[in-house]
Amino acid sequence: MDERLKKQLEFALEIDKEKNIFRQTHLSGHGRAENDAEHAWHMAVMAYLLREYSNEPVDIGKVMLMCLIHDVVEIDAGDTYAYDFESQKTKKAREDAARDRIFGLLPEDQGEELKALFDEFEAFETPEAKFAHAMDNLQPLILNNSNGGSDWVAHGVSAAPVYERQKKTALGSKTIWEITDRILQENIEKGSLKAPER
Amino acid sequence: MDERLKKQLEFALEIDKEKNIFRQTHLSGHGRAENDAEHAWHMAVMAYLLREYSNEPVDIGKVMLMCLIHDVVEIDAGDTYAYDFESQKTKKAREDAARDRIFGLLPEDQGEELKALFDEFEAFETPEAKFAHAMDNLQPLILNNSNGGSDWVAHGVSAAPVYERQKKTALGSKTIWEITDRILQENIEKGSLKAPER
Repeated sequence: MDERLKKQLEFALEIDKEKNIFRQTHLSGHGRAENDAEHAWHMAVMAYLLREYSNEPVDIGKVMLMCLIHDVVEIDAGDTYAYDFESQKTKKAREDAARDRIFGLLPEDQGEELKALFDEFEAFETPEAKFAHAMDNLQPLILNNSNGGSDWVAHGVSAAPVYERQKKTALGSKTIWEITDRILQENIEKGSLKAPER
Repeated sequence: MDERLKKQLEFALEIDKEKNIFRQTHLSGHGRAENDAEHAWHMAVMAYLLREYSNEPVDIGKVMLMCLIHDVVEIDAGDTYAYDFESQKTKKAREDAARDRIFGLLPEDQGEELKALFDEFEAFETPEAKFAHAMDNLQPLILNNSNGGSDWVAHGVSAAPVYERQKKTALGSKTIWEITDRILQENIEKGSLKAPER
C-alpha cells in the first residue's frame, strides 16, 4: 500500500480510541457519561447551525474541523475536568506531547496542518477559535441543563468558576452568551449551581 | 428567547439521542458496539483527510456536514444492519418520516437545507454523496478489520453481499476501493468472511 495512505489509515484507526475517553458531562435523559468523539460530533453540528450568531464572520468548514479534532489529544492526555484545578496545571504539557505523537502519525503535511489547527483552537485568538470555544462551552451546558444541572450537583461546583469559564463564550458569540447567562441564573435559582457568596 | 434560536437549540438537544443508537460495528481493540454519533464523527474526519482520493473534486465542507447528519434519522428509524435484508425493505419509509420530523424541528430554512442534504446523500449521485458513501463503507471496515473481521463472523456474513455494498465505494474513490478489495480478500483468506460459493 502507498505509504501516504497507510499513514492516513493508521491515524484513522488510532483516533477510534477517542470514543473511550469519557467526560464529566452526561447525555440528556439522565444518560451515561458522554465521550469525546460524541462531544466533538455534537459541537461540529451545532457550530454549523449556530454560525449566524458568531460575533465575527468565520470559515465554518474550519470551525467544524477544529471542533472535530480538538480533543484528539485526550487519547493520551485524558479528559481534564474544567473545574479540577490541580489537573488543569499539568494539562498543557500532557496535551502538547499527545498532539505531537498523534498528529505525527499522519503524513507530514497533514500532521502539521492539524497540529496548527489544534494550536489555533488552544490560543483562543482567531474568530474560528473563539466560536469553536463557544460551542465547547454550550454543548455540555445544554446537556447538563436538560438534566437539571446534575453534573454540577455531582461535583458540588459553585457558580464562580463556571462563570469564569462560560463568560468567555461572549468572545465568540454575544447572543450565545446571553442564553448561557440565563441558563446559569436559572440553575443558581433552583440550587443546582451553588450561588455566589455574598 | 428568540423563536429561531429556541428551535435551533431544541434540535441540538434532540440529536443528542443519536448517541444511543448502536450499530453492528464494534470499536477497535474488540470494544463495545459503536453508536451513530461516533460513526458520523469518524467519517467526517476521515473524509477530510482522505479527500485527495475522491474520483471527482468535492466541496469538502459539504461532505463533512453530510457525514455528520446522515444518520440523524436513525433516532426514530433505528439502525438497519446493512446485511439484514428484511429490515432493508422498510428502511426508506421509516427514514423519510424521521427526516421530516427531526429536521422539521429546525427553523424552516435550515430544516429544508438539511433535508436536502440528507436526500442528496441517499440519492448517491453527486460527487459529495459518492465520497461520503465511500467513507460510510470504509469507516466500519477499518474497525472490523482491526478486530479480525469479528463483526462478519458474529453475523455469519458471506462475501457476496459485502462486495455488493462495498464495491459502490469505487463510485466515490477508486483508490479507496482498491484498499477495500484487498482487505476483503484478506478476510476471505483467513475465513472471517465466508468465501464465495464456487
